[in-house]
Amino acid sequence: MSSRDAPEGLDDLRRRLDEIDAALIGLVAERLDVARRVAKRKARAGDRLFHRDREEAVVAARRDAGAALGLDPELVEDLFRRLILASHAAQSVILREARADDARRVAIIGGAGAMGSFLARFFAEQGHEVLIADVATPLTPEAAADAADVVVVSVPIAVTEEVIGRVGPRVRPGGALMDVTSLKEAPVRAMLGSTDAEVVGLHPMFGPSVGSVHRQVFAVCPGRGERWLGWIRETLLSQGAELVECSPDEHDRAMAVIQVLRHAATMAFGRALRDLGVDIEDSLRFSSPIYRLELIMTGRLFAQSPDLYADLSLGNAHRGPVAEALERAVSQVAGVVRSGDREAFIREFRDVAAYFEGFAERALVESDSLIARMVERM
Amino acid sequence: MSSRDAPEGLDDLRRRLDEIDAALIGLVAERLDVARRVAKRKARAGDRLFHRDREEAVVAARRDAGAALGLDPELVEDLFRRLILASHAAQSVILREARADDARRVAIIGGAGAMGSFLARFFAEQGHEVLIADVATPLTPEAAADAADVVVVSVPIAVTEEVIGRVGPRVRPGGALMDVTSLKEAPVRAMLGSTDAEVVGLHPMFGPSVGSVHRQVFAVCPGRGERWLGWIRETLLSQGAELVECSPDEHDRAMAVIQVLRHAATMAFGRALRDLGVDIEDSLRFSSPIYRLELIMTGRLFAQSPDLYADLSLGNAHRGPVAEALERAVSQVAGVVRSGDREAFIREFRDVAAYFEGFAERALVESDSLIARMVERM
Repeated sequence: MSSRDAPEGLDDLRRRLDEIDAALIGLVAERLDVARRVAKRKARAGDRLFHRDREEAVVAARRDAGAALGLDPELVEDLFRRLILASHAAQSVILREARADDARRVAIIGGAGAMGSFLARFFAEQGHEVLIADVATPLTPEAAADAADVVVVSVPIAVTEEVIGRVGPRVRPGGALMDVTSLKEAPVRAMLGSTDAEVVGLHPMFGPSVGSVHRQVFAVCPGRGERWLGWIRETLLSQGAELVECSPDEHDRAMAVIQVLRHAATMAFGRALRDLGVDIEDSLRFSSPIYRLELIMTGRLFAQSPDLYADLSLGNAHRGPVAEALERAVSQVAGVVRSGDREAFIREFRDVAAYFEGFAERALVESDSLIARMVERM
Repeated sequence: MSSRDAPEGLDDLRRRLDEIDAALIGLVAERLDVARRVAKRKARAGDRLFHRDREEAVVAARRDAGAALGLDPELVEDLFRRLILASHAAQSVILREARADDARRVAIIGGAGAMGSFLARFFAEQGHEVLIADVATPLTPEAAADAADVVVVSVPIAVTEEVIGRVGPRVRPGGALMDVTSLKEAPVRAMLGSTDAEVVGLHPMFGPSVGSVHRQVFAVCPGRGERWLGWIRETLLSQGAELVECSPDEHDRAMAVIQVLRHAATMAFGRALRDLGVDIEDSLRFSSPIYRLELIMTGRLFAQSPDLYADLSLGNAHRGPVAEALERAVSQVAGVVRSGDREAFIREFRDVAAYFEGFAERALVESDSLIARMVERM
């Protein structure tokens, strides 16, 4: 707030910072523009847009270039990861204009819902013709199924089997029936029973609020047939999604942990906070980053639909042992905490730490980076 | 992989991307350099380096500049937050050279430990003379306390009171005794009882692996005196830290939730995974971002010291009711999941959702952004 007399005053330096930032922003805009032009060319040539290997090579090269100028490679990696993500979002839009000759007709049953709208936009962006059927649309699920090459069922779990029973028999021979339910045993069984067409079970392992499928995981359960399985694989991979192929049984067993166990633990944490009369805002003042992170993940769960969570937990055939294991584990840990028995606490801690060995160190590094990102925006 | 014939081929575009990226990296390096020069000038003028208001104004201006070029303001904000964080890290180093006339002698008792080393570096970077006493140093805690203006106790909780008892009587009149224990009632009581000098209780709400104190929270419990309380406040604020002032009792009650409850919940989640025989790597293949996040936060806990966690949990006088609340909450939620009673599940969910109302929507937005950052690096 002074020093205007000096040869290089604070004002001069601030002006220089403003100039640098303006140039940075201009280059970012140009980078996105060039990325769009790349997408146009690739779409015209029918090339796949996303190549994870190439992306990793670009990131590694930028890290090296930064290091050569004395920059922290982690800083450079963070910046370019963010730019690459933005490029992908910009490129996805381009694809709408291309691929007219590959266009399929895709019916989204439940296409007015959050995930249904996401899928409708996703397929439309790739040049496909999308038919949307939902409870309030003039187009019925049956009529949409009649008219489509691929029928995707994206409805609440509770009505999935019923809807599959209605549209399955209408899927054309040579077409395909798919679903995006968060459970896979019952829906895939229902699809196989309702149609002779090809069948694929999908589970997008993310919510519809993501910007694109880039780097998002889809569980893929092959049901019947190879042609449309290949098509959906290529459709997702070409947009940068990651696929995990598994049987419906494997999938639902994994979800008993990833969803049932995790959601129960989170719900219980939220309930304990409420029962203790914790004032959320007050506790956030202290906000260690880890507590804040747990609190926003807990708040996130409770911002969503109770019906969805009831379906995910209660519809999973493997829920029983998982809920029991959580109850036993909490009772064990809480017991040790209440007792104040230090030896027992340390024994308990070491037991579980041994199970996490090999993963824990990696988790520390990964969570450090994540926490740093969160603290920046706190 | 073709199209070299076109007026603007893929190779040309890729070359342009490489040029843009090189220019971006060059500007980032220059930006850090200018930031360092700003720090030098400010240090010379005795100005405070970090002003959160000014930082927010810079971010807002950059968002606007980006929007004017058609860029997503969120993208621009993410990039500049990251750059600003890097600038702070670069600027902190500069301060070592300045402030010689304000230099104090700070003794860190336990200065060879992880947090002790962090604090030693922190004070040294601001031009203070740092004395390190630890179990294996030639300098004893008593001798360090004799020689210092400010004595900071940074030792394991279990020996904190004993060490305070040794160094407290040696703190010079007109000096100050501080501690950085994760609990505050017992240490502040012990400090007040062991010395007539000024007393401040501190709790850095973060681990020593962070790059700087920028935006990190310190709980501050005033004990006795105003002079050194003002000094430590200004020392932390000038480096961009956030302070929460509270009484030791308030602090420990908050930590019963932020530490005891949260750690018990995380330990129990880890134990349940182990008891269920979950293969961590296999479950990560499916990795919904939220599950991955919980898993890395759980792995993170078990990468750390069982002794530290035993002290945090068992040393907290308010741990009993908190552990009981968690046990009751889990038993309630797990019971509903096991029973398969849909109505009861939804009632349970809605009850807790009502408590999170107002916070949940904000949590959704904040966690969306965090999850996007994590997915980029998955």
